[in-house]
Amino acid sequence: MQIPRQQMSSREIVETTLKKHNCENSTLILGISGGSDSMYMLKILSEIAPKLNLKLIVAHVNHMLRGNESDTDEKFVKMACNSLKIKCESAKINIKKFQKSEKLNLESAARTKRYEFLRKIKGKYKAKFILLAHNATDNTETVLLNLIRGTSIRGLSGISELNGDILRPLLPFSKKEIEKYCKKENIKFRIDKTNFDIKLKRNFIRHKLIPQIEKLNPNFTQTTLKKSQYFKQAHEFLSNLAENWINSNCKIEKHRINCDSKILASESDFLKKLIIENIYEKFNGSTLDLESTHIDELLKVINKNVGNKEKQIGTRIGIKKISGKAIFYKTASSKPS
Amino acid sequence: MQIPRQQMSSREIVETTLKKHNCENSTLILGISGGSDSMYMLKILSEIAPKLNLKLIVAHVNHMLRGNESDTDEKFVKMACNSLKIKCESAKINIKKFQKSEKLNLESAARTKRYEFLRKIKGKYKAKFILLAHNATDNTETVLLNLIRGTSIRGLSGISELNGDILRPLLPFSKKEIEKYCKKENIKFRIDKTNFDIKLKRNFIRHKLIPQIEKLNPNFTQTTLKKSQYFKQAHEFLSNLAENWINSNCKIEKHRINCDSKILASESDFLKKLIIENIYEKFNGSTLDLESTHIDELLKVINKNVGNKEKQIGTRIGIKKISGKAIFYKTASSKPS
Repeated sequence: MQIPRQQMSSREIVETTLKKHNCENSTLILGISGGSDSMYMLKILSEIAPKLNLKLIVAHVNHMLRGNESDTDEKFVKMACNSLKIKCESAKINIKKFQKSEKLNLESAARTKRYEFLRKIKGKYKAKFILLAHNATDNTETVLLNLIRGTSIRGLSGISELNGDILRPLLPFSKKEIEKYCKKENIKFRIDKTNFDIKLKRNFIRHKLIPQIEKLNPNFTQTTLKKSQYFKQAHEFLSNLAENWINSNCKIEKHRINCDSKILASESDFLKKLIIENIYEKFNGSTLDLESTHIDELLKVINKNVGNKEKQIGTRIGIKKISGKAIFYKTASSKPS
Repeated sequence: MQIPRQQMSSREIVETTLKKHNCENSTLILGISGGSDSMYMLKILSEIAPKLNLKLIVAHVNHMLRGNESDTDEKFVKMACNSLKIKCESAKINIKKFQKSEKLNLESAARTKRYEFLRKIKGKYKAKFILLAHNATDNTETVLLNLIRGTSIRGLSGISELNGDILRPLLPFSKKEIEKYCKKENIKFRIDKTNFDIKLKRNFIRHKLIPQIEKLNPNFTQTTLKKSQYFKQAHEFLSNLAENWINSNCKIEKHRINCDSKILASESDFLKKLIIENIYEKFNGSTLDLESTHIDELLKVINKNVGNKEKQIGTRIGIKKISGKAIFYKTASSKPS
C-alpha cells in the first residue's frame, strides 16, 4: 500500500522519487551551487546513497560573476564534498565574456554554460541523471512569471520533475520547508547575492507577490505544483494532436511541410494554431521566439479563401498557398517556387 | 479597413462590439447598479442608441443589504434614467432571506436573484441581450482568483464578451480607464461599500496584488484579457473533442452513459479526464462541484484492468465496469444492475 505524502519524511519522498525513476545502482551527477536547496539535496542524497547503491558526483560551476564571493562558494562546496567523501568536479567559467561574445542575457549565458558543463561531467562518468535542486517555490515563481508575461498552456506547466536527463528530487518541497530542514539539521549553506535580471523578478515574486497570494490560499505553492502537472498533461496532449494531424495530412521535408489546404481550412482556429506552433518548433527547435501576433498573421493566410497568398515571419517560417496546398517553409532560401 | 483599437474612442469600440453582435434596431436591457462601470455604460449606450436605433431599458436590483444606502442607490439610478428619458425597471429583493432559505453564500444568492430579475425584464420587453458592465479588471480578478484557488483551463477563460444572452460591451476597458472617463465626462456614480466575501477577495486582488504585478508588466490587464480569449478557445476545443468522443463511443441515455471500456482505456489519461468532466456536466448541469480528487478516483476505476470495479462520488456520478462496458450513471437511483 502507498504511504500518503503527509506521513512520509522528506528523505522517504526523495527516495521514492529516485526509485520511481530506477536510479538504484547508478551514477548521479549533483548540480551543487552551495545554496540552501542544493546543500540540502547533497545531504539527503549522501544519506540515501548507500541504501540505493548510488555513486554520487558533485558538479559545481564558478560563474566568476561575484569575484571573491564566487571563489569562496567554490571552496565551500569542495570542503562539503571532502567531508562527505564525495568526488567534486568544478569549473571556472567566464560567463561575462561568453555573454558578450554571444550577445545573450546573463541568465541565458550562465544557464547555457552550466548545462554544458553538467552534461560533460555526466558523459565522463556515464551517469544516469543530472540532479538539480529546484523546489516547489521555484515552480510557482516560474508559473507566475509566465502568467504575468502572458502565457499559453505550456508556460503553466512550470518545472518538470523529470525532463530528459534532468531529475529534480526536491520539487515536492517549498523553499520555506527546505530552509526549515536546513536549520533543524544544521546544514550550512551560502547565500547568493547576484542581481541577474531574472533573479530580481523572481525575488520580487517570492518576497512580494507569493506572501500576498498566500493570504488567500495558504497552500498556493502545493496547489500550483499539482496544477502544473495538469497543464503539462494538457500541453502534451495538444502537442500530440497537432503532431498526429501533421503526420496524417502533410508531406514532411526538412525545411518544408506541404499540407492539404482544404482539410487545414476545415479545422478549428485553435487546432490551426497548434499546427503552426508545432511546425515552427520543427523548423527552429523551440517556440521561444514565436509571438502570438506571428501565429495570428499565419492564421490569416490559412483562412483566406481567394487567391494564392503568402506570408513570411522573419527568416523563421513562411506560408504559401498554392493550388490546393498550404506550404510551410523555413527561411527565404527554402522558399517554394 | 479596420481601424486599430488604439486609435478608436471608447464609444467607437463599444459601437463596434454592438454591431458585431447585430444589436442594431433591437431592445437591450442594461443591468445598472449605480457604480462607475454601469453609469459609464448607461451614458455611452444612451449616446449610441439613436444612431443604432436601440431601445434601452434599465434594470436595477435593490438587494436590501445596506439599508438606506441601497435605497439611495435605487433613487440615484431612477433619477439618472429620468434625466436621460430611459425607462427604468427596479425591484426590491430580500437577498438575506433568500440566502437563509436556500443555504447559499451571499454572493451566489444575490447573483441568482439578480439574473432572475434581469431575465424577467428581458422577456417582458422581448429584448435581444442583457448588457452588463464588467470590465477588463474584473476579468483579471476572475482569472487570478481561479488561479489562486487552483484552476483548470476553463477557469483561465475569465469573463466572456458574449455568453448566451449576456453581452459585456465594456470588457475591453480597465477599471482605471473607466474611472478616468467618468471623471473627465463628469459622470456621477455611487460607491458600493458591501463586504460580500467574494468582494473582499476581489478588493484584495485589485488593490494589493494587481498593482504589484503591474510593476513587472504594466499591461498585465490587457495581456490577461487577450490570453483569456486563448484559454476560452482551448477550453471549447477540448470540450468539443470530449463531446465527439462520447458521441462516437458511447450509448447516451438521460442518467446513464454506456461506453466501450476497451476504447476508453486506450485513450490518454488527459482525454479520459475530459470525458469524465463532460459526462459530469451532462448529469449535473455544471462542473462547479467536481473536484480534481473526484476525477482521479473515477480515473483509477477506468484504468484498473482486473475485475468488475465500481466507484460512486456522492450522488452526483458513479462508474461501473462490467463485461467490456464502462457505465457512467447519475445518483444511486439510476445505478445499473
